[in-house]
Amino acid sequence: MDERTEIGKLGEFGLIDHLTRNNEIRNATTVIGVGDDAAVLDHFGKQVVLTTDMLVEGVHFDLMYFPLKHLGYKSVVVNLSDVYAMNATAQQITMSIAVSNRFSVEALDEFYDGVYAACARYGVDLVGGNTTTSQKGFIISVSAIGEVAPGHYVCRNTAKAGDLLCVSGDLGAAFLGLTLLEREKKIFLETKGVQPDLENQDYIIGRFLKPEARKDVIEFFAEKEIIPTAMIDISDGLSSEILHICTQSQLGCTLYEEKIPVNEMARQFAYTLELDPTACALSGGEDYELLFTIDPGDYEKIAAHGDLSVIGHLTQQEEGIRIITRGGNTHPLTAQGWNAFR
Amino acid sequence: MDERTEIGKLGEFGLIDHLTRNNEIRNATTVIGVGDDAAVLDHFGKQVVLTTDMLVEGVHFDLMYFPLKHLGYKSVVVNLSDVYAMNATAQQITMSIAVSNRFSVEALDEFYDGVYAACARYGVDLVGGNTTTSQKGFIISVSAIGEVAPGHYVCRNTAKAGDLLCVSGDLGAAFLGLTLLEREKKIFLETKGVQPDLENQDYIIGRFLKPEARKDVIEFFAEKEIIPTAMIDISDGLSSEILHICTQSQLGCTLYEEKIPVNEMARQFAYTLELDPTACALSGGEDYELLFTIDPGDYEKIAAHGDLSVIGHLTQQEEGIRIITRGGNTHPLTAQGWNAFR
Repeated sequence: MDERTEIGKLGEFGLIDHLTRNNEIRNATTVIGVGDDAAVLDHFGKQVVLTTDMLVEGVHFDLMYFPLKHLGYKSVVVNLSDVYAMNATAQQITMSIAVSNRFSVEALDEFYDGVYAACARYGVDLVGGNTTTSQKGFIISVSAIGEVAPGHYVCRNTAKAGDLLCVSGDLGAAFLGLTLLEREKKIFLETKGVQPDLENQDYIIGRFLKPEARKDVIEFFAEKEIIPTAMIDISDGLSSEILHICTQSQLGCTLYEEKIPVNEMARQFAYTLELDPTACALSGGEDYELLFTIDPGDYEKIAAHGDLSVIGHLTQQEEGIRIITRGGNTHPLTAQGWNAFR
Repeated sequence: MDERTEIGKLGEFGLIDHLTRNNEIRNATTVIGVGDDAAVLDHFGKQVVLTTDMLVEGVHFDLMYFPLKHLGYKSVVVNLSDVYAMNATAQQITMSIAVSNRFSVEALDEFYDGVYAACARYGVDLVGGNTTTSQKGFIISVSAIGEVAPGHYVCRNTAKAGDLLCVSGDLGAAFLGLTLLEREKKIFLETKGVQPDLENQDYIIGRFLKPEARKDVIEFFAEKEIIPTAMIDISDGLSSEILHICTQSQLGCTLYEEKIPVNEMARQFAYTLELDPTACALSGGEDYELLFTIDPGDYEKIAAHGDLSVIGHLTQQEEGIRIITRGGNTHPLTAQGWNAFR
C-alpha cells in the first residue's frame, strides 16, 4: 500500500524544508536561494532580489469584510515587505489572479485600483502577470523584484552574539483588527441587520486592512549608512520571526517584554477583549514591520529615529531564546509566544 | 444600481488590456512591461526578463490523466518557454502552490520530482516560492527569470514587412494528445473497468503531458548570430500567435498551409478522429514551439537547421492576415483558425 503522510503533520516550514531538501543550485547567478524573505540573484555582478507569495480566499482573507481595493493594496504590500526585509529597493511586481465567475469586471477594477495605489505609493511598476479562471474563490499570486548594491543584502542567518534586536513601528494591532472584524462578522451573521460596531477602532482595523511596508526604514538605513546584521519582516508574529533569526544564526536571544512597542489604542482594545497585549504582539502576526539586528556600535544612529525600538539582544546559543517579563520572570520563547500562555 | 460586467464578455486578452489600461511605468529599470511573453528589466545596464503564469486544477489540467510528476515538469516548462520566447536564457524560477488536504506529502513529492527534473534539464535554479492551503484543488504559480545581452531581447511588435515567418518543431500534436486523453477518460467514466487504449500514441500524448521548451533554438540563434525580428511561443495555437505578431507589429501576413509542420503520427490520428490536421495546428495550442520572424538575409542560416520551418512571410497591413490552402484558396486567418472551419 502506498504511504500517505498528511501535509498538516509537517507544518508549513517543515513542508518547505521537506520539498526543497534536495534542491540543487546550478547557476553562478543564484546567490541566495530558498529560505529567506527573498532570493538574491547576481545579474552581471549586480544584485537583484526576488520574492513571491500566494493568497487564497477563505484561507488568507475573507471578502465579507475585506474590501477588494484593500485586498489589492495589501497583496502588493506584503510582497514589497519581503523585498525591504532583504535591505533592497522594490522595483517591479507581477500580479496573477484566478477568479470564479462570481466576480465581475467592476470587482476586478476595484482590486486593481488597490494594486495601482500600492504601486504608486511605493514607486514600483506592474510589469506582468495573468488573469485566469478559478473553480472557487479568488486566488492571488504576486512576485516582486528589488535591487540592492552588491553585498548589501541582509539575510536571517548572519546575526552575531551581542547584537541589538530591534523592531520598527508597533506590534499586535493587525491581529486585534482581525479579531474585531471576525467578532463583528459573527454578530452580524447571528443577528441579521445589526451593523458592525467599529467606532474608534480605525487604528487596529487600518493596520489589518491596509498595512504598509517599511520602505522608509530601508531608506533611513541607507542615509545613516547602517547595514543590519540580520533582518526579517514580521508576517507570522514577533516570536516566530525571532526564532527564525536565532535558529538560522545559531544564537540565543534575550527579549524584554517592557520594550515591545504596542500602540495605546491597541492595548486598550486588547484589555476589553481580555487579551494580553504582549501575547498579541508575540503571536498575532501580519504587522509587516521589520525585525532586525544591529551591531551595538550603530545604537546611536538608530536611537534618534522615533519609530525604531531596541527590544533585546542576541546571546550565545546555550543561553536560550527567552523573554524577561515586566514582573522580572524569565520564560523560554516559543513560536506561539511563551509557554505560560499555552 | 451598480453595474456588473461579466468577465467572459471581455475575453482573456480584453480583460488584461482593460485592467492594465492606466498602468504607469515609474522606474527607469522597466524596459518592457505588460504585453509580451515576459517583462524586460534593466538592472544596472544589463537586462533581465521576468514572466509568470498560474495553472488551476479543473481549468488548466485534469489530474485524472495528468500525472503529478508531469504536471510539475510542465508547469516549469511553460514558463521557461516564455523566457526563451524573449531570446533570453532562463536562470531561476520560483514555485508557489496551494493545495487542498486531499493531497498528501507523497503527492507533493511527485509533483516536485517533476519540478526538479525540469530544473535539471534546463539548468535553472528553484530559488523561492511558497506552499499554502487551497479551499479546492491544486493551484500552481510559477515565475521565471532569464538573462539577455542588452538589446538582444525579442518582442512581438518588431516584425518588418518582407520578413520570413518561421516555426520550430511541429504543431497540433499536443491538442491531439489532449483530445485522445479526454476521449479515453469519457469512455472510462461511462464504462467502468475499461482500460484506456493509448497504444501507438506515445508521440501525441508525450507532446501534451511532457512538452519541452525550445532552449536549443535560442542557443542555435546565438551560435549563428541570428536575432529574430519578432518572436512568441505557441501556447494558444498558431493562428492566435500569428495574430499577436501581426497586430502588434501592424502588419499583414501570408501563411502557406502546405508549409505548416505536422508530425506524421499526429496527422494519422487526426484523420481517425475526422479532424483536419491543419485546424489542429492552427487552433490547438500547447505546442510550446517558437514562432518567429527573421530578415530574409538570414534564410540560409536557418535553412540548414532540420527542425525549423519557414511557413510564410510578413506583408503590409492592408494585404491582411491570410492563409493559402493546399488547394490554392485564400482565407482570412482568425484566432480560431480560418473561417471555413466555423
